[in-house]
Amino acid sequence: MDKVVITAALCGAGTFKWNNENVPYVPEEFAAEARKCYEAGAAIVHIHGRDPETGMPTPDLAITKRIIDAVRDAAPELIINMSTAIAPGLDPESRIKPIHDNLPELASFNSATMNFALVDHKDNSIITEIVFENTFSTMRFFADSLIELKVKPEIELYDFGGFYNIQLLNEQGNFFDPPHHYQLVFGVAGGVPFTPMTFSAFLSLLPPEATWSVCGVGREQIRAGMCAAALGGHVRVGLEDNTRTEAGEMAKGSYEQVAWAVRIVKAAGREIATPAEARAILSLPTK
Amino acid sequence: MDKVVITAALCGAGTFKWNNENVPYVPEEFAAEARKCYEAGAAIVHIHGRDPETGMPTPDLAITKRIIDAVRDAAPELIINMSTAIAPGLDPESRIKPIHDNLPELASFNSATMNFALVDHKDNSIITEIVFENTFSTMRFFADSLIELKVKPEIELYDFGGFYNIQLLNEQGNFFDPPHHYQLVFGVAGGVPFTPMTFSAFLSLLPPEATWSVCGVGREQIRAGMCAAALGGHVRVGLEDNTRTEAGEMAKGSYEQVAWAVRIVKAAGREIATPAEARAILSLPTK
Amino acid sequence: MDKVVITAALCGAGTFKWNNENVPYVPEEFAAEARKCYEAGAAIVHIHGRDPETGMPTPDLAITKRIIDAVRDAAPELIINMSTAIAPGLDPESRIKPIHDNLPELASFNSATMNFALVDHKDNSIITEIVFENTFSTMRFFADSLIELKVKPEIELYDFGGFYNIQLLNEQGNFFDPPHHYQLVFGVAGGVPFTPMTFSAFLSLLPPEATWSVCGVGREQIRAGMCAAALGGHVRVGLEDNTRTEAGEMAKGSYEQVAWAVRIVKAAGREIATPAEARAILSLPTK
Amino acid sequence: MDKVVITAALCGAGTFKWNNENVPYVPEEFAAEARKCYEAGAAIVHIHGRDPETGMPTPDLAITKRIIDAVRDAAPELIINMSTAIAPGLDPESRIKPIHDNLPELASFNSATMNFALVDHKDNSIITEIVFENTFSTMRFFADSLIELKVKPEIELYDFGGFYNIQLLNEQGNFFDPPHHYQLVFGVAGGVPFTPMTFSAFLSLLPPEATWSVCGVGREQIRAGMCAAALGGHVRVGLEDNTRTEAGEMAKGSYEQVAWAVRIVKAAGREIATPAEARAILSLPTK
Repeated sequence: MDKVVITAALCGAGTFKWNNENVPYVPEEFAAEARKCYEAGAAIVHIHGRDPETGMPTPDLAITKRIIDAVRDAAPELIINMSTAIAPGLDPESRIKPIHDNLPELASFNSATMNFALVDHKDNSIITEIVFENTFSTMRFFADSLIELKVKPEIELYDFGGFYNIQLLNEQGNFFDPPHHYQLVFGVAGGVPFTPMTFSAFLSLLPPEATWSVCGVGREQIRAGMCAAALGGHVRVGLEDNTRTEAGEMAKGSYEQVAWAVRIVKAAGREIATPAEARAILSLPTK
Repeated sequence: MDKVVITAALCGAGTFKWNNENVPYVPEEFAAEARKCYEAGAAIVHIHGRDPETGMPTPDLAITKRIIDAVRDAAPELIINMSTAIAPGLDPESRIKPIHDNLPELASFNSATMNFALVDHKDNSIITEIVFENTFSTMRFFADSLIELKVKPEIELYDFGGFYNIQLLNEQGNFFDPPHHYQLVFGVAGGVPFTPMTFSAFLSLLPPEATWSVCGVGREQIRAGMCAAALGGHVRVGLEDNTRTEAGEMAKGSYEQVAWAVRIVKAAGREIATPAEARAILSLPTK
Repeated sequence: MDKVVITAALCGAGTFKWNNENVPYVPEEFAAEARKCYEAGAAIVHIHGRDPETGMPTPDLAITKRIIDAVRDAAPELIINMSTAIAPGLDPESRIKPIHDNLPELASFNSATMNFALVDHKDNSIITEIVFENTFSTMRFFADSLIELKVKPEIELYDFGGFYNIQLLNEQGNFFDPPHHYQLVFGVAGGVPFTPMTFSAFLSLLPPEATWSVCGVGREQIRAGMCAAALGGHVRVGLEDNTRTEAGEMAKGSYEQVAWAVRIVKAAGREIATPAEARAILSLPTK
Repeated sequence: MDKVVITAALCGAGTFKWNNENVPYVPEEFAAEARKCYEAGAAIVHIHGRDPETGMPTPDLAITKRIIDAVRDAAPELIINMSTAIAPGLDPESRIKPIHDNLPELASFNSATMNFALVDHKDNSIITEIVFENTFSTMRFFADSLIELKVKPEIELYDFGGFYNIQLLNEQGNFFDPPHHYQLVFGVAGGVPFTPMTFSAFLSLLPPEATWSVCGVGREQIRAGMCAAALGGHVRVGLEDNTRTEAGEMAKGSYEQVAWAVRIVKAAGREIATPAEARAILSLPTK
């Protein structure tokens, strides 16, 4: 099936209202954004919990539940993909509990330990950085948890070592059944940028039965999305990755980027997958 | 300068009215197509002479002159890029004479000898094939001629060996001054298809100061164009390469594909180069 | 099986006694070279017919038979791989007849039309060049002939388009049963040199079940052979490709390069395949 | 200069006498190993401090000084390259102090935070793993320190993100003057293995003026070393990376692997750099 699954990553952990006022903090904002993204053409929403008062990312179970419930009410068709990164500095237990609690259809599965930094593009200085820790034992724990919960992982690759880590876990056994779904992430300082070489190299690694999507930070959202739309991949957009439109304007919401994604998918002569079609493409249970 | 130069390849040597009735044969059709392409956003038209009666490609000097003159009258701003391949089976002298006669700003410079076949995509059979002959001595002759005539070459790469052939000519001396301009051609049976690997490999070879464009045969026009627009390249479209629109409809003319190219360039957050801007980008003399 | 199949290409079409006096011209010289190569560790000899008087490459059936018979007498264990290129300018019939006549276990199968030039490395000038013509219809004819004769092809790739040509023939049907055996050829002017990129790109294209060997012209014999020995490939050496040793001395014969190949195979921690083991590796009938 | 610089990594942090009894623990063992490596052809020794009683890696300044002094006495010609990783779990201050104290000519500069695991190849289970932490601020601290001390960094790349991290530091300014020297590390679980793609991709990233060496863990020492010798790189061997010979025997010492490296360098038609020649190749001050 040559349809394109569009994911909208509504907020992330590092984008705030002072970056773009349309980043959702409270459940109603999540619900409204999710609905607009669905109407614009998204099949999946990717969600990090946010404290409704401070806007800070949080694994708080009550808060997260309110957000997820609000999104489910507003756009019941959508596939929900919850982050297991959520926020910097959490232990694995705190990262997995919201998944237990909400049982989304997809959850992110991070494939490597790495530096994760925000860069000031004016002078290339580091604004803030964390060690994004995903050891082999953490990955083992997440795999066991998601398999038990029957939640499909979206395997995030930020660099090539991540793929080989997944391969090693796979060879150990008791890993996710294929086909796997990969999210190729470009433009995080600590990972790799989107270039013809990095894109080509990632694709050379993936098994033929795998599905794959791309997300890019800032302007790389544009580059990665267009190349994926052209070459058979799926596309993630959203304010988590980029606060602006392709024209450099502040985005009115993730939905405005979804509309852009729809345009490039059509320019590629492909069609948009509905959530139901996306479930078939990603081998998720029908709903 | 991050603007995109769009080329419209109006007819080629192997696309006929029975493939798409909008392929131009007579000077008036060339002129009308060129004008529409210019108005849609093209900076360059790429032209092969065609016999007005039979539609067959021809190096005939009188016919070619009428076509070029008609295009120049209709759209004097446009950069003209004339083919030096023109039609199958011609000797080097016949291939270069129309350049002498019309002094376009650009002319194609083919970089390798290869099979050039048309394939029936229903059963993968070969409809017709030729040996597209560009020996080192032919290339030497074309280089000497174009240098003398001060016509800038558009170096066509159909496969990797072509790049190394150019490198060898360059090392022999008396070759074109840099920066060179390359057209990466994808999807000819005998050359390479557009894949992440072939695209990435070509770009890894080009010198940093070079400019580059892509053209793709059939559906590869879409894939190649979108990736080039996303990643800093220039874009060629036109009925020579593809008779259809991105949606699979018969194209009303090359200009309809130019309009598509404009859409993807804007989706990439880039701008369209006017012919004057294209001259600056390609290091052509100002007009 | 991780053993390495060493091929010795004894003479080729373009290396003469004035390049290296040990290039064999007469059947006795072929026989002696083949024997020494076998004793040094080669499993395959690759042979072009040579006129015993002039040394020129020839498709002459009587001459070729004497050479093949002499080699078979001298080293009956060896696998014989006959060229179907033989010499410049031959028609397909003349290129295939010696195969009919001698029924070697392997024959070269060329995958593309290309320039094939000899370069003077002092000034990069072209000493001589031909169009090495292998159209799709010629390839079809050779495929039909070899299939009928039950001779396994060694598919020669000089550039990437060659691989896609083979893929197209494969998709047409009535092509060779897999697994295919590829010879990756590096360093012919008109093809591609041996670089990390060209090597990596070729390997990314080959189907997992294929076997592959490398040959390199001049110094590229060294580079290509070492990388293939290190990374699971097979190795071709011989005076056809390189007249010198790795140290830059005139080689005493192809056998001296076979001894070098044995050294690098052992340095790679791999073992040398006997002709019988090579038959198993290459899926040839046991003898 | 086409000579090859051979580095011997004598012990590392994770190889013990129970892995290979020839791993040096006490200063006299380091000295003897260094001397033998020098005599075998190494120009550089790479050293991690080891507790003479327990054999555990240590940043202890007195111990480290005794080791370095012993090596300098035994083989005064050698270039000393000290690890700044030293042992798991150290803070940046402890990692840099031995450099201040001993002022080697080279010191390792790690380019990324990553998982660093030891794998049991029988069942792919993780024997032990650490987070190898090299944040941007740690790298900044190391860069400032090494620049002040005039110690040249050997930039270790375990994955592609590492290169882009270096590029970002470079763009921030106050980084090491070019030409940089890179060590491409293959086969650490958490990094990338040695494959044609990873090798080719790394080389496509390095600036043309950079020098580069390879090291591979276990069998990848063989693969990486041979390809680097073939293609213009430098070669690191030693018990830190691999306890065995290319034939699979327990190595008598790092010097036995140096002798192997000498053989492959000669097989590649290249020559061994003396320490003095290595200083010129690596732009180190003459001694």
